[in-house]
Amino acid sequence: MDNIIYGKNSVLEALISGEREINKILISKNLHSDAKLNKIKELAHKNGVVYQFVAKEKFQDYAEYNHQGVIAQISPIQYTDLDDFLGKSYNNASLVILDGVEDPHNLGAIIRTCVCAGVSGIIIPSRRNVLVNSIVEKTSAGAINHIPVIKVNSLVSAVQKLKNQDWWIIATDASAKDNYYNIDYCNMNSAIIMGAEHAGVSKSLLKLSDFIVKIPMMNDFNSLNVSNALSAIIFETIRQKLNNIKK
Amino acid sequence: MDNIIYGKNSVLEALISGEREINKILISKNLHSDAKLNKIKELAHKNGVVYQFVAKEKFQDYAEYNHQGVIAQISPIQYTDLDDFLGKSYNNASLVILDGVEDPHNLGAIIRTCVCAGVSGIIIPSRRNVLVNSIVEKTSAGAINHIPVIKVNSLVSAVQKLKNQDWWIIATDASAKDNYYNIDYCNMNSAIIMGAEHAGVSKSLLKLSDFIVKIPMMNDFNSLNVSNALSAIIFETIRQKLNNIKK
Repeated sequence: MDNIIYGKNSVLEALISGEREINKILISKNLHSDAKLNKIKELAHKNGVVYQFVAKEKFQDYAEYNHQGVIAQISPIQYTDLDDFLGKSYNNASLVILDGVEDPHNLGAIIRTCVCAGVSGIIIPSRRNVLVNSIVEKTSAGAINHIPVIKVNSLVSAVQKLKNQDWWIIATDASAKDNYYNIDYCNMNSAIIMGAEHAGVSKSLLKLSDFIVKIPMMNDFNSLNVSNALSAIIFETIRQKLNNIKK
Repeated sequence: MDNIIYGKNSVLEALISGEREINKILISKNLHSDAKLNKIKELAHKNGVVYQFVAKEKFQDYAEYNHQGVIAQISPIQYTDLDDFLGKSYNNASLVILDGVEDPHNLGAIIRTCVCAGVSGIIIPSRRNVLVNSIVEKTSAGAINHIPVIKVNSLVSAVQKLKNQDWWIIATDASAKDNYYNIDYCNMNSAIIMGAEHAGVSKSLLKLSDFIVKIPMMNDFNSLNVSNALSAIIFETIRQKLNNIKK
């Protein structure tokens, strides 16, 4: 079970203190509005914390808690702020952007791969993507402690910021013409966008990308797991960089 | 729940008919020996089916069945015979050998990756490795129907057979000197051995290998998931082969 804070007062206090990293606030659809609930929504909005109105069935897992229809899911890690991340200097670095990865096991595996490959950070959106929870933490086998994870409310804004700081944006798409290994990763900071398991990278992000690449499929069966797809690409960047150093 | 056949008579009949693909037979330690049980063991041994004596706690999941202390776990697929596999001709092909991969999700992801990369077959040992069960089938997202899986009782014998037929053996080991991308995969049939998540490839197989390679780690954290490690290597073979065709 994930860490949670439950009950209007506790959730409100957590928002006021700002000490806890909240992934998401669940609010029962049946709950009547009142001053405290309004304050929770106001502070959540101000702090960029997603809140969702959900059917009471969603609260069944939390039946043992006196939650009063309000639960905050707490992240096991502190997310890194994008501006703080971009405030450092990078030289021929890579970062990974996830656009709609829903399976926590995949996120955990991706985090492991990124740490092994020396990726500088992972950007995830606060909506329509799994956040770092206890399953992700466990699947990452401890890797989660070795890489900054940056949670943003808009991937489009984040990508625009990256472009302004001379990061090159590389999106993956099954219908791309170029293969991922035809890009030269040796003379740029590269941000690699991996899409949802089914839908792929969203159009608004594809438009912003400097390169769109695919992994060539040797079979009609075109269904590579997202963490395995990322692994092929990210270790190609390493191959190129290590070969380049040798020259 | 996996498909099972339960009870002495049914398991014995399944062994006699040979129509069902049995992954493993579980026999209760508390069971007294009798003619039928002896026949089960005799036929299992003859047919290369692993049987294990297990504590009665192992049977708790099957409490609803009148199993009499004998259960056969049935594979959802028909395994391919190594000799049948090697009876075909291969040209610059790859196959993957798994030595101690225990997590069914990893095996499922590996099967997907292998199908996407056009790998000719996957060899797994009948002991100390997960076999194809319902979790593997589900995680493979249908890929299991597009690649032969070869179950063998001895990986050492299998590798020796491969070597006799001019397959080159490439094992992965974290302490190898060579990086995986320094091998030329374009002019040989290559069999890539991936080891257990913790123990790596066994020494007896390392001794038989023509090449031992590693994936370079960019961090002290050296714990790449086995399916992600394989993905990096197998798509490097594809990169080389596609580039080679272009030349």
